[in-house]
Amino acid sequence: MKHALPVTRQADFAAWYQSVIAEADLAEESGVRGCMVIRPWGYGIWERIQRLLDDRIKATGHENCYFPLFIPLSYFEKEAEHVEGFAKEMAVVTHHRLIPDGKGGLQPDPAAKLEEPLVVRPTSETVIGTAFARWVQSWRDLPVLINQWANVVRWEMRTRMFLRTAEFLWQEGHTAHATPQEAREETLRMLEVYRSFAEDCLALHVIAGEKPENERFPGAVATYSIEAMMQDGKALQAGTSHFLGTNFASAQNIRFQNADGQLELANTTSWGVSTRMIGGVIMTHGDDDGLRVPPVIAPWQVVIVPMLRDNPDDEALIAYAKELQAALAKQTALGEPVRALLDLKPAKASNKRWSWVKKGAPVIVEVGPRDMAGGNVATIRRDRLYREDGKLDSQIGPRDAFVTGVADLLSDIQSTLHREATERLRANITPVSDWAAVEALFQEGAINPGWVDVAWSRPTGAELDTVVERLKALKLTIRNAPQGQTGHPGAPCIFTGTPAVERILIGRAY
Amino acid sequence: MKHALPVTRQADFAAWYQSVIAEADLAEESGVRGCMVIRPWGYGIWERIQRLLDDRIKATGHENCYFPLFIPLSYFEKEAEHVEGFAKEMAVVTHHRLIPDGKGGLQPDPAAKLEEPLVVRPTSETVIGTAFARWVQSWRDLPVLINQWANVVRWEMRTRMFLRTAEFLWQEGHTAHATPQEAREETLRMLEVYRSFAEDCLALHVIAGEKPENERFPGAVATYSIEAMMQDGKALQAGTSHFLGTNFASAQNIRFQNADGQLELANTTSWGVSTRMIGGVIMTHGDDDGLRVPPVIAPWQVVIVPMLRDNPDDEALIAYAKELQAALAKQTALGEPVRALLDLKPAKASNKRWSWVKKGAPVIVEVGPRDMAGGNVATIRRDRLYREDGKLDSQIGPRDAFVTGVADLLSDIQSTLHREATERLRANITPVSDWAAVEALFQEGAINPGWVDVAWSRPTGAELDTVVERLKALKLTIRNAPQGQTGHPGAPCIFTGTPAVERILIGRAY
Repeated sequence: MKHALPVTRQADFAAWYQSVIAEADLAEESGVRGCMVIRPWGYGIWERIQRLLDDRIKATGHENCYFPLFIPLSYFEKEAEHVEGFAKEMAVVTHHRLIPDGKGGLQPDPAAKLEEPLVVRPTSETVIGTAFARWVQSWRDLPVLINQWANVVRWEMRTRMFLRTAEFLWQEGHTAHATPQEAREETLRMLEVYRSFAEDCLALHVIAGEKPENERFPGAVATYSIEAMMQDGKALQAGTSHFLGTNFASAQNIRFQNADGQLELANTTSWGVSTRMIGGVIMTHGDDDGLRVPPVIAPWQVVIVPMLRDNPDDEALIAYAKELQAALAKQTALGEPVRALLDLKPAKASNKRWSWVKKGAPVIVEVGPRDMAGGNVATIRRDRLYREDGKLDSQIGPRDAFVTGVADLLSDIQSTLHREATERLRANITPVSDWAAVEALFQEGAINPGWVDVAWSRPTGAELDTVVERLKALKLTIRNAPQGQTGHPGAPCIFTGTPAVERILIGRAY
Repeated sequence: MKHALPVTRQADFAAWYQSVIAEADLAEESGVRGCMVIRPWGYGIWERIQRLLDDRIKATGHENCYFPLFIPLSYFEKEAEHVEGFAKEMAVVTHHRLIPDGKGGLQPDPAAKLEEPLVVRPTSETVIGTAFARWVQSWRDLPVLINQWANVVRWEMRTRMFLRTAEFLWQEGHTAHATPQEAREETLRMLEVYRSFAEDCLALHVIAGEKPENERFPGAVATYSIEAMMQDGKALQAGTSHFLGTNFASAQNIRFQNADGQLELANTTSWGVSTRMIGGVIMTHGDDDGLRVPPVIAPWQVVIVPMLRDNPDDEALIAYAKELQAALAKQTALGEPVRALLDLKPAKASNKRWSWVKKGAPVIVEVGPRDMAGGNVATIRRDRLYREDGKLDSQIGPRDAFVTGVADLLSDIQSTLHREATERLRANITPVSDWAAVEALFQEGAINPGWVDVAWSRPTGAELDTVVERLKALKLTIRNAPQGQTGHPGAPCIFTGTPAVERILIGRAY
């Protein structure tokens, strides 16, 4: 069967990923090392993610703020573990002026060297914690619950669009609380916001759980994540939530007078998701014809392509299509008005159809003179593009029935994508009870079997280092210890042989 | 009369401005030179601005994208006039790693010096133009109509919150067109979007017009602005729109094949507004009790403060207040559901009232046990805080009438603020027919008379330089030549004495 992309998932998953991004006009290389241009269709998906997640962040009591892009070097020197974790990969501003270099070009002005270099924020705990120290005096000032949508920069040697770029877009929540209990509850509340957002909006199926010690955010007491499974069996960490205890509060002096008049350190949290989520959507829902965007986050849910012939009949056809667009916009699907686009670009209708297939618009509607005469429309569902005989599944039916049924149709597409993601994840987790089985599953040359689910005694220190090394040899990492485990882990730890305390998921990851 | 701020507008306008920002919790110094922290109330206003303006930008056919924060030095070397205009004030990234400095601190790693320094974008014409050159091949690819919401950095020696900060937030629109006519139309279309947005949403009264040659954006053929008048008579340029002709297209090689198969240069435009607008809102609508936020851009339009006494009756009062909040949220005002907040923070009710007065919430509603018993509410309109006798104007009335009347009330506050701004601007523009009159009006020690309106022959080159110098001696600048001038300018140019072609506005400015 022929497909719209030049390469299939099976032939070369990495090349397929790049081709979806190119063919769906999601993003492109910018010419600036490690930075991408996010094009309108990709940015439209990000805008949907922002709006929907922002609503959930606000509904849990958080307010948005904005903090500086630049962080003075000295701020990083305060929290030792934190700087250790980030020091290797930051963009540093050292000058504030350019002057002619005498060769027709420009150079940084040596006379405009900054006394203290500024770091382009890789994350904002240090600068936001400094503000918290100003804001928090008494227990009455707590909790502080804030969030910012921002760009951050981490200098990466190997970049991949959406998944790992030098600059990326994200939200970072930062909170301060009177007690460790409250801060832990906040950490888990936001993990749950991420989990439900990923399921409800992105149609991903994710496992929420705690990261092992070696995968913690630099300076955190506990780090939690949501992990999604990509179609190649690899894991994608799609969001993290950190309980920071008093580590940052003590470095930044966030103290408050409690109800008894005593000075205490606040407990802080931080949590974030980024444009990386779009990479997860691509690798979860994409197929060999391009992207399939879940209707909830699709910038346009229904795209109408009129079959124009450059003749006087076009006018009536455009009017028919406009009426259809207006009728759709009056429908409510998935809790919002339907987003319907009429594509009037000067291009051949069949090219437009395939362009929208590759972009992954959930429903494509084609209308030609014959459809119009019969009061019909021809619809393509992007989630099931082909009939069993391999032909494109374009269904002709009455326009009115399509309009009244569009809410159910979009809901059905959303749940179909979610069901496929859920089934894939469930089918590709293998419970394993000894290390030899892990080695066999992940031996060189084998098809990636997905994740394994093993008993774990939570080793620390040198013992943990040994585990990490053994996993690394197979290119594996511990993803997380899933939440909600009840009962006994069922076996001794596969690494230490000592009694296990929980089960963890192990896999290859992006 | 006593007021809520420590300083009045009349006593010290600049200190008053800073005190509004502090007392209304809009923003604060960040500890990072020239960068501010935008706090929730200030950022909430920016979010309203973003959402409302973004809708208008999209309604005129533009799509949002995202381009890199970093721009390679060489990109700036291409457009000579442009780099000349910006070269003096840019943050330059020269290193991509930090290492220990051997003294317990950190330093940029000399081994990680970038081959080509990166400039933190001061504006994105160069990097977006480079993308346009990739995207545009044929006339069918035109127009390209895009916009981005982003942070930008211009190293400023003297900064002032919202008005002039090293980092600020803005939107920048960039478009490419087949003909100069289309590009000029686009430039004026977006100027009109800014003008109507400022009037309808910010309740500013602004004058839209063309900037003189010496005030053009570096590299532009024509620059247009909207100019608002602050309460101290100074002008604030609140938005600009630039027709760039083929200047950037030729530097960046944005060429297309026209319908006849010939290669042509595209014509481009750019246009932007920034967080500076918030400074304009403060200096237009603020009074000696703090900010007055126009209801359309107020994060919360109605704030309910229950008079809690820490006793068991509080529960019933909170329930009464919650019902009120829910009833208000069901009302539609100014085209959207009413945004009503119930303030349950642990603080004294009178402190909360004054905190919301200073923040400028349009309507403050206080409810105590007696109001509840009578089915009443006590309301304060922020736009007219005091009665004629100088007492706080708190009106007690039936709850139900308040709820059903809230839409009219908010509309009335919005138009009152707009009317005041309009009247102030109109009353403070003085038509003047000779230079001596300008000198008299703006003599040292005089109260700033606002703007003067003079006949102008549009001098260029050395003649214009002389005009600029004469104005500079009085700290004056030409604001713009207002749009829509019909008929004869009425007099010879006050500078050159030669026949005038239009009238211009001159004033002091932020």
